[in-house]
Amino acid sequence: MAVEPGRHVLITGAGGIVGTVLRRALRERYSLRLITRHPMDEPVEGNEEWCPADVADYAALRPAFQGIDAVIHLAASASPESAWADVLPANIVGAYNVLEAARDAGVGRVVFASSTHAVGMYYRDARQKAFALDEDERIDEHADPRPDSYYGASKVFGEALARYYHDEYGIAVICLRIGFVTPTADADFQPMRDVARADDPELMSSAIWLSHRDCAQLFERSLLTTTDWAVVYGTSDNARQVWDLGSARRLLNYQPQDHAPE
Amino acid sequence: MAVEPGRHVLITGAGGIVGTVLRRALRERYSLRLITRHPMDEPVEGNEEWCPADVADYAALRPAFQGIDAVIHLAASASPESAWADVLPANIVGAYNVLEAARDAGVGRVVFASSTHAVGMYYRDARQKAFALDEDERIDEHADPRPDSYYGASKVFGEALARYYHDEYGIAVICLRIGFVTPTADADFQPMRDVARADDPELMSSAIWLSHRDCAQLFERSLLTTTDWAVVYGTSDNARQVWDLGSARRLLNYQPQDHAPE
Repeated sequence: MAVEPGRHVLITGAGGIVGTVLRRALRERYSLRLITRHPMDEPVEGNEEWCPADVADYAALRPAFQGIDAVIHLAASASPESAWADVLPANIVGAYNVLEAARDAGVGRVVFASSTHAVGMYYRDARQKAFALDEDERIDEHADPRPDSYYGASKVFGEALARYYHDEYGIAVICLRIGFVTPTADADFQPMRDVARADDPELMSSAIWLSHRDCAQLFERSLLTTTDWAVVYGTSDNARQVWDLGSARRLLNYQPQDHAPE
Repeated sequence: MAVEPGRHVLITGAGGIVGTVLRRALRERYSLRLITRHPMDEPVEGNEEWCPADVADYAALRPAFQGIDAVIHLAASASPESAWADVLPANIVGAYNVLEAARDAGVGRVVFASSTHAVGMYYRDARQKAFALDEDERIDEHADPRPDSYYGASKVFGEALARYYHDEYGIAVICLRIGFVTPTADADFQPMRDVARADDPELMSSAIWLSHRDCAQLFERSLLTTTDWAVVYGTSDNARQVWDLGSARRLLNYQPQDHAPE
C-alpha cells in the first residue's frame, strides 16, 4: 500500500547525511519521527518529533514504532572501512531490531537503505573500464552478492532478512542500494579520493553519485509506490554508470534529474 | 589448491549429525581437529584431536586454527525454528570468527555448511508441485536469496561474508547448501513430518534428503577440488527435486549415489 503525504514516517539515522536530506524534503508533507543516538545538528521543526534511541537496543527502539505507517531505515555504521565490532551491533542487530519492531507494531512499509557496497566487488572490477559500462554490461539487482567490506556484507544480510519479513509477514520492503551522497550541498560535489578505497582513481565517485534531490525523490517514490518488494540501485543519471537503474525506474517510477559533473 | 589426504582439517560443530558423518568418513585419511562446545558422544580416535571451544568466542577459537590446511565449518544453531537470540552468536558471529581466524592463520580452504533454508521460500512454493520440479524449473545458486527463517538469513550472510573473504584475501571457499541428513543411519530414513515446517506434507523431506555417504562425498570433493569459489546444492539424487545439482556435479565432481525412498 502506498504511504501518502500526511502519514507518519519514522526515520532511523535521521541525523546523518541522507537523513538530513530526507528531513528537508519530506517534513512539509509527512509527520516525521526521527530516531538518532545523538542530538541532531539541525533542530526539529513543526511536523518532526525526535526520539533518541540506539537501533541496537530493541527495548529502547520499539516504543517509537507505535502509530507509524512507514519506516525509513538509514541508521548504520556506513563505511566500507567500518570495523566488524561496529557493523555487528549497528547494522546486523539494527536491521533485525528495526524489522522486528516494524512487524510487531504492524507497520506496513519499510524502506531499507542498502548500499552498492553489497556488490562492491563488481564495482572494483569496473575500474578497468573507468566505471563506464555499456548498458548491457551493467550490474542488476539479481547479480550474486559480492560485498567489498563488512559493511557490504551486512547490507546483503539486511536485504535477505527484509525479504524474509516480506515473504513471511507481508510487510512491503523497498531496498535501495544507494551510492554516494555529498555531505554538504550538491554544488560542493567533486569526485573525491577520500570516498573511494585508497587504490581507486578520483573518478570513482562520479559513477556512484546521488544528488540530494534525486535521493529525496528515490525515497519518496519508495513510500508512494504500490510495489511491495524491490531491490534497486540508486544513483543519479551519471555519465559513468556501473549499475542498472532499470528496476528503479520501472518499479518505483524513479526519474533522476541530475548527473555528476566530470 | 586441493587439500589431499594426510593434510590437517579442522571441523567446527564436529559433534553434530553432519560432523559425526564426516568424522567417520575422513578420519582414516585426514588429521582432524574437532571443535565442539560440549564433549562429543563418539570418542576421539587415532587421527582425531578434540579442541573444546565456542565458535562465538574468537579468543578461544583462534589457537585451534594453527597449522590447519582446510576448515569445514558446520557449527550453527541449525534449525529454521532457531530464535534470533541463538542465531546471532552461533551463526553470524560464528561465521565471522571462523573466516577471520582462517584468514589470520593462513588457512587456504574453507568448506562452509550453508543450507537450502537460505532459499527456503522457493521450496515452500514448490509444495504446489509436490517438490518435483522439472529440470528447467529447478532453483540454481544464482536465484535471489529468499530465506525462510533467521537461520536461512544467517546462511545468506555467511555465504556473502565468505565471498568477501574469497575476493579480498584469496581464500578458497565452497558453500554447500545442504539438505536434510538423517540423525541416525540412512536405513532409518523415512519422510518425516517433524523435520518439516508444520504446514508441510510428509513428502517434503524426500526432496531434500542427503544420505550419509553422499554427504561425506560432497564434503570430501569440496576439499579435493581446485575450484576456489562455489555455492552449490547438496542433496542425494532424489526423485523429487527442487534444487539444481548441476554446479555441484560440474564444479566439484559430486556424483550422488543414493536417492530417497518414497
